[in-house]
Amino acid sequence: MLRRHLVTALALAGSLLVLPAAAEQDKPTPTPKEILARSAPAEWRTPDPQNLLLMQLPSGRVLIELAPDFTPLHAANIRTLVRQHYFDGLAIVRVQDNFVTQWGDPNDDDNGDKSKLRSLGQASKTLSPEFTRAIDAKLPWTPLPDGDVYAPEVGFSEGFPVARDPASGQQWLAHCYGMVGVARDVAPKTGSGSSLYAVIGQAPRRLDRNLAVAGRVLEGMPLLSGLPRGPEPMGFYAKPEQRVTIESVRLAADLPAAQRPAIEVLRTDSASFAALVEARRNGRNAFYTRPAGKVDLCSIEVPVREAKSAH
Amino acid sequence: MLRRHLVTALALAGSLLVLPAAAEQDKPTPTPKEILARSAPAEWRTPDPQNLLLMQLPSGRVLIELAPDFTPLHAANIRTLVRQHYFDGLAIVRVQDNFVTQWGDPNDDDNGDKSKLRSLGQASKTLSPEFTRAIDAKLPWTPLPDGDVYAPEVGFSEGFPVARDPASGQQWLAHCYGMVGVARDVAPKTGSGSSLYAVIGQAPRRLDRNLAVAGRVLEGMPLLSGLPRGPEPMGFYAKPEQRVTIESVRLAADLPAAQRPAIEVLRTDSASFAALVEARRNGRNAFYTRPAGKVDLCSIEVPVREAKSAH
Repeated sequence: MLRRHLVTALALAGSLLVLPAAAEQDKPTPTPKEILARSAPAEWRTPDPQNLLLMQLPSGRVLIELAPDFTPLHAANIRTLVRQHYFDGLAIVRVQDNFVTQWGDPNDDDNGDKSKLRSLGQASKTLSPEFTRAIDAKLPWTPLPDGDVYAPEVGFSEGFPVARDPASGQQWLAHCYGMVGVARDVAPKTGSGSSLYAVIGQAPRRLDRNLAVAGRVLEGMPLLSGLPRGPEPMGFYAKPEQRVTIESVRLAADLPAAQRPAIEVLRTDSASFAALVEARRNGRNAFYTRPAGKVDLCSIEVPVREAKSAH
Repeated sequence: MLRRHLVTALALAGSLLVLPAAAEQDKPTPTPKEILARSAPAEWRTPDPQNLLLMQLPSGRVLIELAPDFTPLHAANIRTLVRQHYFDGLAIVRVQDNFVTQWGDPNDDDNGDKSKLRSLGQASKTLSPEFTRAIDAKLPWTPLPDGDVYAPEVGFSEGFPVARDPASGQQWLAHCYGMVGVARDVAPKTGSGSSLYAVIGQAPRRLDRNLAVAGRVLEGMPLLSGLPRGPEPMGFYAKPEQRVTIESVRLAADLPAAQRPAIEVLRTDSASFAALVEARRNGRNAFYTRPAGKVDLCSIEVPVREAKSAH
């Protein structure tokens, strides 16, 4: 039995806006794989090495793209921390099921001895919140057509899922799967980027506009999501030996060119991305005979690939 | 620094439908913990032991509640399989990041030797799809107020997240985190319940109405979600030793009373559940100063607790 076919059709795409006639229904729509194979080189971008973090874990590398157009102070402070090798030897401190994996200084909790905390050095200890920013026509904007439970408008900008409210003139990065947020103390201005979390479950959109979002995991999510959940409240690990150690975090810009991750990200303002969105909405094949006809913001993953030049 | 407070406010609740005045904003709303502490015994139900599966893994137990009012043929067939001890010694065969964990017969793939497949015995090899069912006033219905990207109406019925379309008169279980679906072959009627999957990421609502949903994981999700993702396409494990073995699956009704899981589930048509929904929509405290004001179907978890009588 073709049990593997459970999700074969998730790889299929289409562009029918209405339910097709019977004859049409037998015709599969283009798959994401086919759409990407036909994409033009100019539809892909190389992340700015100033925005690309490489977090090395014992299990492999995690690549994170910062979003300085949305959270510039946080991007700058995280770069400062990384350049001081702040994260090297720190750890994943908690994994809470259907919520987040968080990393930083294991001594940084309510009960820890503050004198044991690693110094933030030249980095700021607190930053302005940057929970939202102004809508700006200079930033690219690819709206989605099917609405959103939480915000008046949703779409993509510079590779990131974004929600916006034209009435207030504000936009913000949405807490979708794989997005990286900035942990903080109770007061809104107490985030620094020294402790970060990645979303590993249903998008906790209630966090939007309450926490700064610094970027997105481009590669390595399974190394963060596929970990044992911590036994303590909020998924904290109980013992040091349960924690995954962060070997190092480096900025791609600080690495020799040959050591920089050779990856490309599909532009979210490209025709191929639009085709992928349509594939998610109306993709259809012999297995998935009933397209949803809709897609929600956090069900769209922006493709990342090995750079063609690296082949 | 109170980094643990990242999500403290997720435990907080409220009932303000408009943004509160400045003085009101300083007043935290009731937390889910407080709401549950005040709940009445009659607001909790004991799952019917005919619908409660206990899947024993080396790492612990997973409890699954079947949903015979939505997928009766599948519930009956799964009971038949379980009573034959069909699942004992089978395995978790794949874990695909941000999608599903699937279990069943490891030989059940496109390339396997069909002669090695475990017999389904008295169980049916295929079933009618049961992808949707008629809306029926006899089933409880707790609608949510904030809409949905995919369906005209969403809410809860008998503890399960449900989407419905009054125009067609149909309703169906939604593929939210922790929901258990029935893998199948290409043809819609080829599911049997002998291979099941649990959602471990952003709700793949595009699966709704394309696959039968058999129930929900009540306990043990971390044992399914916190596993290494498989290295093969679609998260299949490459080697037998990578797979988690299923020690046994039993129906609670078939266990001696003393061995039945002593759990209770909050009724989704109770006042306390309504208060929890409101807490998710408008919960507010010193950390979360900006309530979302909305909640999506799959961001609401139905509480499960140890039965009071078990204390």
